[in-house]
Amino acid sequence: MAALNERRLVALLDARFRSDAPQVSLGIGDDAAVLAAGSEPWVCSVDASVQGVHFDLRFLGLEDVGYRSFQAAVSDLAAMGARPRAALSALVLPRWLSAADIDRLTAGQAKASQETDCPIVGGNLARGGELSVTTTVLGQAERPIPRSGARPGEQLWLVGELGLAAAGLSALRSSSRAHPSEEPAPALARCIQAWRRPRALIAEGRELVGRASAVIDVSDGVAADAVRLAEQSRVRLVIDRERLRATLSGALLEGARRLRRSPLQLALSGGEDYALLATGPRALRPPSARTIGFVTTGSGAFVAHGPRLRPLRGGFDHLRH
Amino acid sequence: MAALNERRLVALLDARFRSDAPQVSLGIGDDAAVLAAGSEPWVCSVDASVQGVHFDLRFLGLEDVGYRSFQAAVSDLAAMGARPRAALSALVLPRWLSAADIDRLTAGQAKASQETDCPIVGGNLARGGELSVTTTVLGQAERPIPRSGARPGEQLWLVGELGLAAAGLSALRSSSRAHPSEEPAPALARCIQAWRRPRALIAEGRELVGRASAVIDVSDGVAADAVRLAEQSRVRLVIDRERLRATLSGALLEGARRLRRSPLQLALSGGEDYALLATGPRALRPPSARTIGFVTTGSGAFVAHGPRLRPLRGGFDHLRH
Repeated sequence: MAALNERRLVALLDARFRSDAPQVSLGIGDDAAVLAAGSEPWVCSVDASVQGVHFDLRFLGLEDVGYRSFQAAVSDLAAMGARPRAALSALVLPRWLSAADIDRLTAGQAKASQETDCPIVGGNLARGGELSVTTTVLGQAERPIPRSGARPGEQLWLVGELGLAAAGLSALRSSSRAHPSEEPAPALARCIQAWRRPRALIAEGRELVGRASAVIDVSDGVAADAVRLAEQSRVRLVIDRERLRATLSGALLEGARRLRRSPLQLALSGGEDYALLATGPRALRPPSARTIGFVTTGSGAFVAHGPRLRPLRGGFDHLRH
Repeated sequence: MAALNERRLVALLDARFRSDAPQVSLGIGDDAAVLAAGSEPWVCSVDASVQGVHFDLRFLGLEDVGYRSFQAAVSDLAAMGARPRAALSALVLPRWLSAADIDRLTAGQAKASQETDCPIVGGNLARGGELSVTTTVLGQAERPIPRSGARPGEQLWLVGELGLAAAGLSALRSSSRAHPSEEPAPALARCIQAWRRPRALIAEGRELVGRASAVIDVSDGVAADAVRLAEQSRVRLVIDRERLRATLSGALLEGARRLRRSPLQLALSGGEDYALLATGPRALRPPSARTIGFVTTGSGAFVAHGPRLRPLRGGFDHLRH
């Protein structure tokens, strides 16, 4: 691939990201993109992935970096019950990144963009010392679901899987120390894939509209995100330990055994699965949601083990990690 | 100010950026922000300012960094003829940045947000090795103006001033070498202020709707941006040297004299003034637009000096600078 210059790269991205989606009136290449108004409210969010903070290139290819940064951003739309409409991609590209590297990175973004039906309509290219991918996502929902609507008496629902991504990252870290070239066992391979290639639960989020009273996407671990949801809804959330345990996948149980980690601990504290944690009345629970607890009066989030309540610690701090 | 943590910082930003603008249904603090649909098309853009690439903290305070990065992003909305509706701010914060530093940075963003009537409704906080501010802006326009609509026979218009920001940066660079503590002359102080505190020309952009056939904001110098506009409209743009000279401000002429630089050269190649370059029929020129040339058939952008045409070089490359 020829030497990198902005003109060539913009042409590559224009070709790669071009979309004929009806909502895109004007795409890449102008001062700004133009989207048809539609009649539904707009939902917008931005998410950054920074090298050395959010990803480690020893464990992740550049296509994975592009793919997962995009899915992580779209997950915020899923948590609002929104349909993705468009995305903007701001890349900070260090000089060590070759044209072939950028091709891989943007191929990952393009794949995630296609899978989520969320065309990339614009962006920004800049030089910098460290690679970062900042993705803005725009969606629409007839009735976006906030974090603040949980009410005492409702159920606590889990949509998607917990713990796999944390087990996958743990497996990569330990095998890079112990057995760098060994093939992982199938259960761990599944966990590693969950970490490298998370999927935003868009269809599942859409199913929650009109049913769930509050939703948050589990990016920092269900413990931390349950504390957030409880705080923003001014309620207490109680996770039933046995119900949570019943949701854990075979791959997590087997992976955790091999890693000598507690699967429940991985599920509670592991982030980056992009599951959805929601609340809603029992009668409205959609099939994809599994009940893992309940909403009551009070504050904070707890795990119930029989009659014992153990408080969950929140306060995951993105500025410390 | 107490030690920095995410919770405290989000609370600060929530208080600082809070808005009661009617289009904001849900602001900072949820998975995503929610905006009322409205009936007009949406215009969206993202712009990044990276330390050491887009700004140099020897010449710019952190409040300036916040202010100008926001105005630069909003300038893309001005160039579409759009009204600002909302912004998202993604900050990458290095560890050397203190809580007081972040207070200054975000105070600059808040000031620009208020001046442009563009509430910050969400964002992202991340650690990283170098400071960057990535601003997504969303606006609405009944009829957004693209770069591609210029037609032969139309006039070429300039809205705003050229060259001041480049003169200001040049003054800061040379005085930091020669006379670090000397007060700049009033003309140079005006140029420095233009570089530190640019203003997106929103009202002027709005005036161009229904009048201009094409608009671009001059972020990389009018020479480079005229080449882009010509290419995207598939026309030739000719800048009349004497007409361009007639638009130069007294501050630029005096500043350039003191810097021993050509004011015309500063105007042609200097970026970051965020003026607007537009095309349109003579009869529709708004009062704020000054005619500096014309559109004809062919390709490329040229400066005409009497009968001589000198080609302008485009190709400003953000990945080289």
